[in-house]
Amino acid sequence: MALIHYPVFNKNGDIIASAVTNLDLHDISRAAKTYGLRSFYVVTPLTDQKELVKKIISHWVDGIGSKYNPKRREALELIRIKNSLNEVVEHIRNNNEESPKTVVTCASARDNFRSISFGKFREMLHSGRPYLLLFGTGWGLTENFIADADYILEPIKGNTNYNHLSVRSAAAIVLDRLLGA
Amino acid sequence: MALIHYPVFNKNGDIIASAVTNLDLHDISRAAKTYGLRSFYVVTPLTDQKELVKKIISHWVDGIGSKYNPKRREALELIRIKNSLNEVVEHIRNNNEESPKTVVTCASARDNFRSISFGKFREMLHSGRPYLLLFGTGWGLTENFIADADYILEPIKGNTNYNHLSVRSAAAIVLDRLLGA
Repeated sequence: MALIHYPVFNKNGDIIASAVTNLDLHDISRAAKTYGLRSFYVVTPLTDQKELVKKIISHWVDGIGSKYNPKRREALELIRIKNSLNEVVEHIRNNNEESPKTVVTCASARDNFRSISFGKFREMLHSGRPYLLLFGTGWGLTENFIADADYILEPIKGNTNYNHLSVRSAAAIVLDRLLGA
Repeated sequence: MALIHYPVFNKNGDIIASAVTNLDLHDISRAAKTYGLRSFYVVTPLTDQKELVKKIISHWVDGIGSKYNPKRREALELIRIKNSLNEVVEHIRNNNEESPKTVVTCASARDNFRSISFGKFREMLHSGRPYLLLFGTGWGLTENFIADADYILEPIKGNTNYNHLSVRSAAAIVLDRLLGA
């Protein structure tokens, strides 16, 4: 899976590179580890943000944190920092026979031939081919970015009309629905 | 539901009152709102921690934050601050005909007559009687606290042996399993 910090919308609908949130790294890598994902890609083109992510990972993977909490290390080891979606796809292709199919998540439903349900995607995951699950930050992925994905996963429905989960909560629920026992 | 900051274990197995984490309030209240919960109780006996929670809520419910992001307000409005589980139960009893049955969550399975599966609890929720779902912080709820609950919910299983989700992720997944569409 990948967490995309560019291109995403800000509150005003401008396309921006969002800042990396420390707890996104912790919470999502722990969920990724729990559900057996191969890698958790953190995608940002910003040099200072990449440095920040490296610093956080290094604290928990090689530094004092790795001794303080080895379980945290096992999770944060899954993180790979990349500049762009293209770099992620290339990295996966170099480690597999095939290019991954990309599956984008978003909070609102799309009436689209590329839309797939959780049940359908769960089945597809049994094929053994690589899939790359994409989550946006900020106020969501841009329309062009969504349009470029191979599939669009149905949005999470609770039992109200409120659909403003954090990306950390959304990622946990999506992984559980796709891979939970 | 309630998020318990005392009595919980720290890393060394001592019983402590844990510090409140800002993002627990945001993420869990947004999940609670998504899944239609009545209230999200934040339980801590520490005066400075209660003041901190009040300040955060007030920023988003009455302050600048409420205009900046009204959706955040709708979620954080669900938070009630209480000193203890007893105070939570009393508050629920004052708003219902019945006392709530308490259902405690934990990361490890208990072989116990009070253990219930997600499916079983999902059914029980249709009865219309009040239930109070309890989550621990820090390194988990104490054994005595767990022993006092009416029911113990089965732990979340991913598809690995790694079971170190954050409480934010765990709460999101539990609510989705119990109440998701």
